[in-house]
Order: sequence, then structure tokens, then C-alpha cells
Amino acid sequence: MIEITLPDGSVKEFPKNSTPMDVAKSISEGLARNVISANFNGTTVETVTPLTTDGNLVLYTWKDDEGKKAFWHSSAHVLAQALEELYPGVKLTIGPAIDHGFYYDVDLGGKTISEKDFPAIEQKMLEIAKGKYDYKMRSISKADALDYYKKQGNEYKVELIENLEDGTITFCDHSTFTDLCRGGHIPNTGIIKAVKLLNTAGAYWRGNENNKQLTRIYGVSFPKQKELKEYLHLLEEAKKRDHRKLGKELELFTFSHKVGQGLPLWLPKGAALRERLENFLKKAQKKAGYEQVVSPHIGQKELYVTSGHYAKYGEDSFQPIHTPHEGEEFLLKPMNCPHHCEIYNARPWSYKELPKRYAEFGTVYRYEQSGELHGLTRVRGFTQDDAHIFCTPDQLDDEFKNVIDLVLYVFGSLGFENFTAQVSLRDPDTPEKYIGSDENWEKAENAIINAAKEKGLNYVIETGEAAFYGPKLDFMVKDALGRSWQLGTIQVDYNLPERFDLSYKGSDNEMHRPVMIHRAPFGSIERFVAILLEHTAGNFPLWLMPEQAIILSISEKYEKYAEKVLILLENYEIRALTDNRNETIGKKIREAEMNKIPYMLIVGENEEKEGTISVRKHSEGDVGTLTVDAFAKLVEEEINRTLKQF
Amino acid sequence: MIEITLPDGSVKEFPKNSTPMDVAKSISEGLARNVISANFNGTTVETVTPLTTDGNLVLYTWKDDEGKKAFWHSSAHVLAQALEELYPGVKLTIGPAIDHGFYYDVDLGGKTISEKDFPAIEQKMLEIAKGKYDYKMRSISKADALDYYKKQGNEYKVELIENLEDGTITFCDHSTFTDLCRGGHIPNTGIIKAVKLLNTAGAYWRGNENNKQLTRIYGVSFPKQKELKEYLHLLEEAKKRDHRKLGKELELFTFSHKVGQGLPLWLPKGAALRERLENFLKKAQKKAGYEQVVSPHIGQKELYVTSGHYAKYGEDSFQPIHTPHEGEEFLLKPMNCPHHCEIYNARPWSYKELPKRYAEFGTVYRYEQSGELHGLTRVRGFTQDDAHIFCTPDQLDDEFKNVIDLVLYVFGSLGFENFTAQVSLRDPDTPEKYIGSDENWEKAENAIINAAKEKGLNYVIETGEAAFYGPKLDFMVKDALGRSWQLGTIQVDYNLPERFDLSYKGSDNEMHRPVMIHRAPFGSIERFVAILLEHTAGNFPLWLMPEQAIILSISEKYEKYAEKVLILLENYEIRALTDNRNETIGKKIREAEMNKIPYMLIVGENEEKEGTISVRKHSEGDVGTLTVDAFAKLVEEEINRTLKQF
Repeated sequence: MIEITLPDGSVKEFPKNSTPMDVAKSISEGLARNVISANFNGTTVETVTPLTTDGNLVLYTWKDDEGKKAFWHSSAHVLAQALEELYPGVKLTIGPAIDHGFYYDVDLGGKTISEKDFPAIEQKMLEIAKGKYDYKMRSISKADALDYYKKQGNEYKVELIENLEDGTITFCDHSTFTDLCRGGHIPNTGIIKAVKLLNTAGAYWRGNENNKQLTRIYGVSFPKQKELKEYLHLLEEAKKRDHRKLGKELELFTFSHKVGQGLPLWLPKGAALRERLENFLKKAQKKAGYEQVVSPHIGQKELYVTSGHYAKYGEDSFQPIHTPHEGEEFLLKPMNCPHHCEIYNARPWSYKELPKRYAEFGTVYRYEQSGELHGLTRVRGFTQDDAHIFCTPDQLDDEFKNVIDLVLYVFGSLGFENFTAQVSLRDPDTPEKYIGSDENWEKAENAIINAAKEKGLNYVIETGEAAFYGPKLDFMVKDALGRSWQLGTIQVDYNLPERFDLSYKGSDNEMHRPVMIHRAPFGSIERFVAILLEHTAGNFPLWLMPEQAIILSISEKYEKYAEKVLILLENYEIRALTDNRNETIGKKIREAEMNKIPYMLIVGENEEKEGTISVRKHSEGDVGTLTVDAFAKLVEEEINRTLKQF
Repeated sequence: MIEITLPDGSVKEFPKNSTPMDVAKSISEGLARNVISANFNGTTVETVTPLTTDGNLVLYTWKDDEGKKAFWHSSAHVLAQALEELYPGVKLTIGPAIDHGFYYDVDLGGKTISEKDFPAIEQKMLEIAKGKYDYKMRSISKADALDYYKKQGNEYKVELIENLEDGTITFCDHSTFTDLCRGGHIPNTGIIKAVKLLNTAGAYWRGNENNKQLTRIYGVSFPKQKELKEYLHLLEEAKKRDHRKLGKELELFTFSHKVGQGLPLWLPKGAALRERLENFLKKAQKKAGYEQVVSPHIGQKELYVTSGHYAKYGEDSFQPIHTPHEGEEFLLKPMNCPHHCEIYNARPWSYKELPKRYAEFGTVYRYEQSGELHGLTRVRGFTQDDAHIFCTPDQLDDEFKNVIDLVLYVFGSLGFENFTAQVSLRDPDTPEKYIGSDENWEKAENAIINAAKEKGLNYVIETGEAAFYGPKLDFMVKDALGRSWQLGTIQVDYNLPERFDLSYKGSDNEMHRPVMIHRAPFGSIERFVAILLEHTAGNFPLWLMPEQAIILSISEKYEKYAEKVLILLENYEIRALTDNRNETIGKKIREAEMNKIPYMLIVGENEEKEGTISVRKHSEGDVGTLTVDAFAKLVEEEINRTLKQF
């Protein structure tokens, strides 16, 4: 008999060689129907792998990321089999599961596959799936494995196997298909009920551009047809909400080849949007006792040698800037913290003056390979809503709570209602990996956990996930399409205060090291705007909209009245514009809808006579005929509903 | 007889060999007494130089810069003579006039001169001056000149003479003293009535650090004792107002060796001051139809090759930034204009949409040698209050007037009442030196002159001073100490629109080139803050002050009332703080005065009882006992007096 420990801590005895599936069955028939993958003692195993020792077992269903991974990995095998049947002579290389689906890189020997070929391949995959073939792993000697693929003439698999150690090599069979494979499959192909190939792309063998270019075929699969439909709808929605597309349509930002990749140029509407976001946070930060500072975008190499950034990132960063006549070396700043440490160091401090909270919308530059760049979410220059709090260890508790309040205010005012938090603590078994005293770590970790509890956060604790310099709290938001984004981070730092020799005079008249907190509720303005665009599809909260209203005149006769209304709105600080073109009102409304302007104010004969406006709301339609005053009140109320008080 | 034309255009006949002094005498005895230098046909001459041809003659007195130059140059000879008498064996090198005085670089052969030696040298100089020795120029052959200095063993003068052409060499004699000299002296030493040596410094021969280090002695001299006294007072005042000193005292900015020289770090009070200046200008610019944009602080080298900046400044700038894996080269941006051209180029434009006015508080980086850096006036990174207007040639007139209005608004609101303007036009004789059509140049030059006239500017026209790419208008302000600073520039540019191939569709449906205007009323925030600090001695206009009021409690008993007053003031958006320390009210007032806080609000028993505050104004004293409401009104009135409506 062996003892199996389940995630809830319960321990059960099973005969030796029982499988994860046997364990599932012993718990419930329902679980057995749904279990599709397992992990034993930290290693992925098949649901049919015989268990021979005591150990910890986790069973995964489709709901788990690990379950999906097994599902998609198994689907890649089915894709490969379908390709072998439809494209005889195709050479398989690798076919892993990815975040949303799977791909297989194949050498088609000169043939091509395009979207029009997808239906036939999908149909073949479903046919195979219906066969309910079991996935069966088997060990194979290196010699036999090489022999198998050499006979096929598949130099790719041969190369892969040559790099493996004899005794560790496994093949997986299902139906008539065999693949070199480390394992981690669903029980059988029958679970795969829906399949969709998404696109093809070129991919170099082993990612090296000197190697042969292969064809990569991306696909996704599901246990239910309905789930595929939902996923395709989501894809469609995500495409519509793509911030790169919306950013262009709404004239928020642009890129220029000459200026350089990954370096956004903010157009007037986008720059105004940024400024509103910055002012919104500045105002709250002022109330929370932050002070703005301004630091340059470069610093001497010595600054980053002191901070440790140079040793860590130097070679993989933008390279040093030299000066013509003097032997100086500067670096584009990748972080604002070293500069803020020097600002703190500009004069001595007493404990009575702490905490100091230095905030800066600091633009930093970090090198990313051009292939990794993506719109505003992955750029080479971005503006952090950065702040560094220098405090005594005893102040950590309050400071953490205050920062959480600020983050929650930001999320609340910007319509992110669905979020979780992750507390990253050090691994208590390896204290030597971390800087700072045990006492301080305990203080900081307790401060974070207490603050998270007191503020009612939905959080998980990850032990061992802390940075070497201190524990942290990260926020993950879910957007309107259910996608997760990491936003907002609060990190304790015991390292930079040491490196910059920061100090304050304590009540004991001795010099002490302050603790430092790094925090950024947005993370970066660029990334935040991108996420907000995708979350809201460009329908920002009213207080943030570039244009809140557009006045549409029925004909050019009412241009004067339209301009009068504009001035009245400006007095209420409502951002509006007029459309007095010689176009039909229908066309004007359609364009305003497309431009996502929240309110359309139609003015014609009646409105001019009565001194009113006919109000339409974006995507909702007619609101009624109002005076400008009444409309202004309506706008104010809507803003007050979203933009909370801090 | 020869014909002499005077600056007023009048022409008089004089016998050949008449001197400038003769001409002065013929005009008036008073002029003859005051004339100290002259210029004949564009060349500096002595007042005793015989004139042998027809020509244009300008006579200078002490009031003219050229007069002062001759005065100080002549004084340098007297200093040299005094040094020869007091320090036998001293070797003279060069001794020019400078902006405010003169210096002489000498080789003391191991001896030293320090401030304690100054009185003796000054006394000797005055003794010599009293001798009323005439300055007498004479030509000398190269051989004789070399012989003269070789005999003295003065290798420096020998080296200077070796580089001169025979036939052009002149000596100047006065009293027993002789010097190698090109001329430009006052009539005699007797005019020098007051002398002050200021300091000594080391200076390498010919400015080359591989050469021998000489002793540089700085001095200044005047025709009246009273003028020296005034000048020394001004120096004292300038020292007190040094922005580097005030910036530290008022905690506005700091520098860090680690961050790098010439890269200011703005402390909270300074950052808030910057922000107020920026918001002040942003608000006016919004009204004037500008749109804010945001661009990165780097750009690909290609961008600056296109703009022409790389060819012009590349080698003398911060060197290119390379990336680790790709062959890219970026440069720190020295100017915002190339980025703004790319923003303009992001989409096509119709003439109906122009002018586009893109504004950005853009931080730019320019390499300056470390020896040239000076506080905030000469830095390596600074933020321009930059904007670029893209308009049709017909719109230039209005745009220029609007920009002048904005500049005048800025000067008016910041207390610069004393300013002049310079219009720089092209040299009409060398049109090939300039880019752009004759027609456009005429349009632009007329637009500038018309605007300057219509706005009632006190301006001078400088022909030939335009940049190759367009004419410009510069503003010079005089500060409270009478020193001139260049502030604010408006430049027309025909070059960048060509280089970036900018265009708009005209009413004729053809594509046209827009004209570009560069403009910056402040110039740079850093330099402007420095000048404002020196102009106001830190007593900024009330609307701009970091702290507008400080509440001083008579004793700790009134702390609560002080905090209540603080909240009331915050409701009026008055920036205030409290001083509730256990110190005497006298000490608190002294410190607040030193910190230049405009209003001190004293609260004690009476004030608490009556709900009032006792108001003191900085450097003026008691204002009276007021309610907080009345004080807020007083503040509002003072702000409205300075911060004009735009």
C-alpha cells in the first residue's frame, strides 16, 4: 500500500501501482469524468501512470491551467497526426501547448498550408479525436529512438534526441501516431470536442535565423463546442478592442519609424488623456502626503553601479552614452529609484521628518528586442507613476495601508472592479538569499499581510516569491474580456538604503537606515492606457474622456447657436466640440458614435428657440431635451458616480 | 580736405590728418572732454589717429560698450606697468578687456600674488594714472619687435609676435611702459580715476592645459569713484542673489555627483515651482489654441540626420546610444522639433485645419564641457517650454502677433518690465546663404516687423543676423540689477518643413509646404528659474511662491488654533504651513523672513479669542489684525495685480 496526500491535506491509502485516475474514482465518479491531468510530487504525470511510492497528488480538470495545458499539448499530437495523414512526408519538429492553445512547427518539404486548408485539417483532427484513442507513454532507448526517426528521415527529431540522455527518452503513442514526448496528456483523444486552427507563421528551427524556416500552425481546442464559440467571440472582441487599433482611430498616439520602434509619440488627445490621469493621481497623492520631484532621464554609470542595476542589467540595456572630450559615461535611466535616493541624500533627516514620500512621473528607458515590442504594452520608453517612500521600520504598517487605499481608489475610479492581490514572501528556509535582518523581514511581511487583511483584499500568499531585497504585494486586474493584467505593485526594499547609505537620526540620537517602499498604482502610463483602452473599448469613464460631448447642428443655420452652447459648456469645464459641417444629422451622429464621444447634443430650430439641447448618449440613444444647465448637472452626477472621493 | 560722415548721416569737411578728437572738438567742447574711443570705417582707431581719407566716424564715450572696452583695455596696460614696477622680472602675456573689466595673464616666475597684495597694486595703478600719460601707438618691424622681447626674455610675447605678419605689428607706449598692442585706447591714463582688483585665478598659457600655468589678475576701473562704489555694491547684491545659493537655501534644487554634473535634481519645492510655471503657461497656451503633445527623450540617429542636427552637432554632442543585439543607434534629443515634425507627419492636413500648434515641456540634453557648467543657467539637461506652429505663409502675420502677446503676458506676470527685442533679418546681398524663396522671406520678415510695430515693442533690426533657415525675434530682459538676459525667442523655419517633407493640401487642391515657427517664451524652465531667482532675490510673485504664508503660534498652547487656520487657508487654496515649535516668536519671524515667506500670520491668545490672525508682510512688517477671510481677499487682490488675464 502507498499513502497519497491530497491538496486539502487528507491522506488516503491505495494499493501500490494505483493511478491518479484510480484516486479520482475513489473520490467521486464526477471527478473521475473530469480529471484530465495530474501532478505527483511536483512532477507532471499521466492520469494512467502507476504510482509506486507515497506522495502528494494533485488532480487537474479543464478548469485548471495545468489541465488546459495537458489538453492543448494532447491536441498538438492530434494536429500532428492529421498533418501526417493529409501531408505525407511532413517532418514534425516541436509542438507545445501555449497560453491559449498550441502550435506545431513542421517542415512541409516545399508545400504550403494556408487558411483555406484549415477546414480539412480540422475535420481530420475531429475524426481522430472521435476514435477516443488512449495516450500511451513508453520508454525507449536512445539508439532505438534515433533509429525510428532516422528511418523517417526526420533530421529535426534526430537532433533533439541526440541532445537527450539515454534512459530518459519517452515516446507517446495514440492511434497509429507516435511522437517523441515528455508526457502530460489527457486520458484519451475523445475529450477533444472542438478544434480551431487560428493561423500560420514562419518560424526558424530552434529560433535561429540561420536555420531552416519551418511552418508554425497555431490552433486551439476545447472539451465543448460552446467553449470554442465563446473563445472565438472573445478573440473577435479583443481584436476590436486592440489598443493599437483604438489608439489610432481615437488619435491618441502614433509611432514613427524615424523616431524609433517602441517609442510612442503622444498626439494631442492622448497627451491630454495622460495629463488627466497624471493630475488625477497627483491630486490624490498630494492628499496622501506625497511630494513631487523631478529628476533627469540620464545618470552617470556610477549611479547604477552603486544601485546594482548596472551589474544586473548593464549588458542587456541601452549601452552607455559617452561624451566627446571627457571620459564620462551616462546611462538612460531604467529606474527612478537611484535618483530619488540621491534626492533623499541631499540633506540629513530626523525620524520626526519621516516618512518622506517622493513621487515622479518619471520616464524611463529599457531596451527590449524589436521583436518583443507590442503597441503600448511593451515599449522601450515609458512613464512610471513612480514614488518612493522612505520611512522607519515602525511606519511600514501605516504606509502599506495608505498605499493600498491609493491603489484601490485608482482601480475604483477607473472601473477595474475585478482584481486580486499576491503577497510575495521570502523562503524562510533560505534566509541567506535575502538582504536585511530577520527582524525587519518579519516586520515587513507582517505589515503587508496585516494591511491586505485589514483592507479586505482577495489575496494569495506566495512563499519564496519575494525579491532578494524585500517582500511585495502585486495587484492583478481582470478586464472586461476576463483577461488578467498585472497592475500596481508595492515593494519593500532593504537593499538600496544600504547601497546608497541612507540614514536618519532616530529618537535615540543614533543614525538608522530607513526602509524604502517602491510603488506604482498604474505601473506605467503607457501600459495602463493600453489596458484601459482594451478594458473599456475606448469608452473611458466620463471624467477621463478626451471629448465629453459634441454639439451637432441640424444645419449650418444653427452654427451660431451651437457655438454659444459650446461656450456655456466650457464654463462648466465640459470638454466639447462642434460639428457644423454641411452633412446630414444622421451622418454626424454615426461619426460621433464611431468616435466614441459620450454625449451628442443636437441643436436645431426648436432647441435654439427654447434655449435647449437634445441629448443622445453614446450607444444608448435618446436622453431627452435639456437645458445646458441640466445637462451639466447630469455630467457632474455621472462623474461623481465614477470618480470617487479620496 | 576729407569728408567725414557721422552716425546721424551729417557730412563735414576736415583737413586731411585731422583726428577723431579734432572732429569731437568741432562738435562741442563737452563731447571732446568725454570722447574716449573711436571707430573709423568699421575699424577701432585711437582718438589721436590722423584720418587720411573720406569715411564714417563713430565717437564713443564711457556710456558706450565700445567706450568701456577701450577704457578697460587701457587700464590693463596700467595694471601691467604697475606689476612691472612692483614685481621686477614679471613676464607679461595677454591682457584684454572683458564684459565687466579686464584681466592680465602674467608669469610671476614662482612668486605669487594674493588679495592682500591688491591694495599696493591698486595704489601704484592710481599713481600712474594720475600722470596723465598719453597712449601712443607706433608701428614696428617684426625683427625689432622680436628683438625687444627676446632681450627681456619674454618667450610669451615672442611666440605671439612670431605668429604675426611683418608690417602689421604695433606697440603702444605710455609713461615708461611699452606693450605689444593692436590699439583701441582712451586718450590718456588720467581718465582712470577708480581701480579695483577683484581676484586672481590660474590660467594656462593659450588655454592649453599642457602649457605653463600663469597668474590671471582680474580688475575693473571707472572714470569716477562713485561708479566703482555702485559697481561693488552691485557685485555684492549679485552674490546675495546668486541662484545657486538661493536655490540651496530655499530647497528648490540640488546636484549630485553620482547623478552627474549639470543634471539638476528638483526638490519638492522646486518641482512644485516648475509645475506652477508650466501650468501657468499651459493655461495661456490652451486659450491661444496650442495642443500639448508628448515625445520621447531619444530618437534614432536617422531622425537627426534627416533634421540636419547630426551633421551640425553630432561630434560635439552626447555620443550615440547603441543597443545590445541590434545595430540601432539612438541619440539623446537635443531639440524637440524633429519629433514634432514626425507628429505633424502622422496624418495628412488640409489648409482648413492649420495652424497646428504643438506644445511640449520637452526635456532635452546637450553636451557642455564640465568647465562651462554653471548652476541652472548652463546645464546638460533642461526643459524647454517648446512649441512648434505649422501654418500657411499667409497665417504668419497673425501667428507672430499671437506669440508676441503670449511672451508679453509671461513677462508681465513674472515682473520683467524692462525688455527690448531684436529682429534678425537676412543679408539681402547674399540670398544664396539662406533656404526658402525670396517671396517667403519677405513675407516672414514683414510679418515680424509688422507684429513688433503693432505690439509696440522697443526693437532693433539686425540685418544679416538671421539663421540660414529663417528670420527671428529675440527678447532681452533687464533684471533688477540691470543685467541683460536673453529670454524668449520666436523663429521662422523654412528648413525643417523641407527636410521632413511636410505638406498640406491648399484651397487649390495642390500640396504645399507649411511654414514652421519655433518659440519658447521662457527659453528653458531651468534658466528661467535661475534668472527669476536672481531678478527677485527669491521673492517671487505671490502666485508663484512655494509657500505663501506661515502661521506662527506664539506658544504651543495655540497649536490647535494654528492648525485650524491652516485648514481655512487650504480651502482658499493658499499654500501655507505652520510653525508650532517651542521657540520665541521673534526667532520664528526671523527664520520666516530668511526663508522669504511672503506672509507671516501670528496667532496667540487674542487672535484665538477673536478668530483672527495678525498679519506681517515679508521685509515690510506689520499689516494688521485680519480675519482669515479678509486675508484671503488681500492675497487674491495681490495675485490679481501681478498675474494678468490672458
